[in-house]
Amino acid sequence: MDTQTGITATAPAGKIPQPSEPHLPDDQWGHRAWELLQKLRSRAPLIQCITNVVSMDLMANLLLAAGASPAMLSSIYEISDFTPGVDALCINIGTLSEDGLASMRAAAAVAVKAGRPWVLDPVAVSASDFRMEACLGLLELRPAVIRGNASEILGLAAARRIRNSKGVDSSHQSFDAVEAAKSLSRSIGAIVAVSGAVDYITDGHMVVGAFNGVSMLQKITATGCAVTALIAAFISVEPLRALEATACALSIFGVAAELGMEMASGPASLRMHLIDCLDGLNEDLLVSRMNVYRVS
Amino acid sequence: MDTQTGITATAPAGKIPQPSEPHLPDDQWGHRAWELLQKLRSRAPLIQCITNVVSMDLMANLLLAAGASPAMLSSIYEISDFTPGVDALCINIGTLSEDGLASMRAAAAVAVKAGRPWVLDPVAVSASDFRMEACLGLLELRPAVIRGNASEILGLAAARRIRNSKGVDSSHQSFDAVEAAKSLSRSIGAIVAVSGAVDYITDGHMVVGAFNGVSMLQKITATGCAVTALIAAFISVEPLRALEATACALSIFGVAAELGMEMASGPASLRMHLIDCLDGLNEDLLVSRMNVYRVS
Amino acid sequence: MDTQTGITATAPAGKIPQPSEPHLPDDQWGHRAWELLQKLRSRAPLIQCITNVVSMDLMANLLLAAGASPAMLSSIYEISDFTPGVDALCINIGTLSEDGLASMRAAAAVAVKAGRPWVLDPVAVSASDFRMEACLGLLELRPAVIRGNASEILGLAAARRIRNSKGVDSSHQSFDAVEAAKSLSRSIGAIVAVSGAVDYITDGHMVVGAFNGVSMLQKITATGCAVTALIAAFISVEPLRALEATACALSIFGVAAELGMEMASGPASLRMHLIDCLDGLNEDLLVSRMNVYRVS
Repeated sequence: MDTQTGITATAPAGKIPQPSEPHLPDDQWGHRAWELLQKLRSRAPLIQCITNVVSMDLMANLLLAAGASPAMLSSIYEISDFTPGVDALCINIGTLSEDGLASMRAAAAVAVKAGRPWVLDPVAVSASDFRMEACLGLLELRPAVIRGNASEILGLAAARRIRNSKGVDSSHQSFDAVEAAKSLSRSIGAIVAVSGAVDYITDGHMVVGAFNGVSMLQKITATGCAVTALIAAFISVEPLRALEATACALSIFGVAAELGMEMASGPASLRMHLIDCLDGLNEDLLVSRMNVYRVS
Repeated sequence: MDTQTGITATAPAGKIPQPSEPHLPDDQWGHRAWELLQKLRSRAPLIQCITNVVSMDLMANLLLAAGASPAMLSSIYEISDFTPGVDALCINIGTLSEDGLASMRAAAAVAVKAGRPWVLDPVAVSASDFRMEACLGLLELRPAVIRGNASEILGLAAARRIRNSKGVDSSHQSFDAVEAAKSLSRSIGAIVAVSGAVDYITDGHMVVGAFNGVSMLQKITATGCAVTALIAAFISVEPLRALEATACALSIFGVAAELGMEMASGPASLRMHLIDCLDGLNEDLLVSRMNVYRVS
Repeated sequence: MDTQTGITATAPAGKIPQPSEPHLPDDQWGHRAWELLQKLRSRAPLIQCITNVVSMDLMANLLLAAGASPAMLSSIYEISDFTPGVDALCINIGTLSEDGLASMRAAAAVAVKAGRPWVLDPVAVSASDFRMEACLGLLELRPAVIRGNASEILGLAAARRIRNSKGVDSSHQSFDAVEAAKSLSRSIGAIVAVSGAVDYITDGHMVVGAFNGVSMLQKITATGCAVTALIAAFISVEPLRALEATACALSIFGVAAELGMEMASGPASLRMHLIDCLDGLNEDLLVSRMNVYRVS
C-alpha cells in the first residue's frame, strides 16, 4: 500500500474467464451503434484520462463531441478521491514517466475496486524495457479493453508469453496480430482491439472487423489515443457487452472520419471536420455508413 | 523561504478591503471594451501561464489572437528571474501536481511582491482534498481575479466558510453561485467571475452580467481556462479597474464566439473561427454585439 | 555516468572545425528542396522530440504532414533503449524542468554516440539563469543545428562569450544577430539559423537567406518550435549538408505558410491550412515559390 495515498495496487487473483458475448447479427451493428451513441449523449459519462501529453487536446475534444465528459486529472494525490466517481478510465502510456506510471497503477486499481471499467492503450510498448514492464504490470490490473496497432499487440502478446508461460504457447513463434490478439484476450480476460486499415476486435473467441475509416488518419497525431478514450466512453454505458461497445466506438470514429474526409483538404482540416461530424452525427448517416461484421 | 529558489511565499497580512469600482453606465461597455482591447494590442503584455497541460495550446493561441504575449514557463527555478518582469500571471489547477503547486505558490508570491496582478482558475476544485487545499492556500496569496463555473465558485466559497469562519456565515446553508461569488469576493478582496450561459462578475458589492457567448463553447475543451488567461491580459492593462477589465475580457470572448459560430459547423470549427474572429475583431462588430450590464 | 540509466553524458573533446559546405547556386534551391522533401516522404525518418508541452501537438502534426514519423518519448528510463534507433533528435527547452533537462542531456549524448544528428531550440534562453545554463551545457553536446530568433541567438552568443572567452571576442560589444550567429556557429561547429521575417542560416562562413513565410505565423504559438523539428527531419535525410537541409526546411515551411495564407482568415485557420498545404505540396508550387539565396 502506498502510505501517502492509501491506495493498494493489488493484482487480481489470476486470470478472468471471459465468456464470449452473444453474437450480434451483421445487419444490426448500425442500429446498435446508434443506440449506444444515444446512451452516451444522454448520460454524459465522466471519463478520466491518464494519457500522454500529445493526445490530451484531441482526446478531450473527441470525448466532448461524442457526448462524454473528459477529466484529465492524473496526480497520485487525487486518485482515491476522484477515481471512484468516474464512469470509466483510459490509460495511455505514450509519454510515460515514473510518476505517471504510479498514478496509472493506482487509478486502475481504484477503478477495478469501484467496479468501473478501464482501457489500456499500450503506445509503442516495444520502444523500451521500461515501457514494456509498465504495460505488463498494468495488464495484471484487469483492463476491460486493450487497443493498439498490430505491432503493439504483437509485441505485448510476445512479451507476455516470454515472461509468463512455461512453454504452452512457445511453439507459436509466428502468427499474425489477430491471432496474437485472441491469445492475449484469452490470457488477460479483456477485449483486444487491433487498429489498422481494418480494426479487428476480439473477446478471445469471435473476431469482429470494423471497416470504416480513412487512411489519412495516420497523418494526424494521437488519433489512436483518442479512439481508445472513445472506447472507454462507450464501454462505460455498456460494460457487460464490451466487445460490441468497442466495435461501435471504433466504427463511429471511422464513420466520422469518412464524413470529415469529404470536406477535408489535408490532415489538419480532417482533424477538424471529423470532430464536427462526430458531434453532428445522426442515425441515418451512421446506419447507412457503418460497416462492421463478424469475421471469425 | 525555499532555500533553493530564494522565494518567500508569505501570505499577505489579512483581508484586503476592496472598494467598489465606479459604476460604468450600461451603454458604455462596448466602447470601454474596445478601448481595453486597443490597449492590449498596442502594449502586447507578457502573460505568464502556469496552467494545465490540456489548455496550453488554446490558451497561448487565444492570448496571441488578443494581442498579448504568452509565456508558459513554470519551473520553480525560473520564477525569481522571470516572473517579476511579466505583466500578469494566470494560475490554473486543471492538471495539478506537487511540483506545479510549488511553482504556482512561488509565482503568485513573486507577482504580488512585484505589483503584478494574478488570476486564479480553480478547475474542478471539489474533485479532491489535494485540489481544494491547494486552492485555499492560493487564495491567501491575493489573486486579483478568480474565475470559475458555478460549482467551482460554490465549492470554494463553502470550503472557505467551513475552514475559516466561526459561524458568521454558517447560517447561509444555501445560496446561488452569485451570492457565493459576492461573499467570496468580499472575503478575499478579489473580483470573482462565475461563468455560464451568462457570466456574472462581482467585486463583492455590485454584480455585472455579461450575456455574450454560445452554448457550443461547452463542447470545446479548455475554453474556460483560456478565457481566464484573457482576463489576466485585460487586467494587466487596466489593473485598477479589474471588474471592468474582467467583464470586458469575458464579453469579448463571447462576442468572438458568436461571430465564430456564424461560420462553424461544430465544436472544432468553432474553436478555429473564434480565434480568427478575436484576431480580426473591429470596433463596430464589438460595440454592436456586446451585451453587458449591471444586474445588482 | 548515470548509474540508473547507463548513459554517460560526456562532452565532446573541444570544438569541431566545421568546413564550409559547397555553395549551391541560387537557382538550384527549389529543386534541391523538392529532392529533400521527396527523400523525407519516402524514408519517413523517426524523429524524437523532447520538447515543450505547448508545442507537441503542432510539432507532431507538422512532422507527419512532411512525411516524418514523430516520437515524443522523453523519460530518462527510455533513452538508452530508444534513442540509438531514431534518425534525428529535436531538443526544445520551452517548458524546461529539471527532469526534462536530464533527459535532454542523456538523449543528446546517446544521439551523438550513435551518429545521429540533433538540433537545439533555445526558447527564451535569456529568461532565467537556469535556462541559460541548461543551454550552454547542451551546446557542449554537439548539436548539428541551433535555431532561434534574433534575441535568442544574440543571448546565447553573448553568454557564451562571457563564460568562455578570455577577451578575444569581448571587444565586439554590439553586432547584429547574423554576426552573432556566424560567431556562434564557428565556436560550436554547428549550423545556426536565425528566424524572423527573413531566416538566415550560416555555417560560420557563408550566410543563406530564406525569404518565404508570412507575418501572421507570429500569432500562432509554437510555429518556431515546430519548424525546428522540421529541420531535424530534413537533416536526418541529408546529414552531411546540414546548411542546405536547414535552409530547405525553413523555406518549405515558409512556402506552406504562404499557400495556407491564401485560404486563411486568421491565425487559427492559417495553422490548419499550412499543415494541409505542407502535406499536399508538389514540385511546381515549391519550385515556383521558393525564395532562397546566398547573402554573404
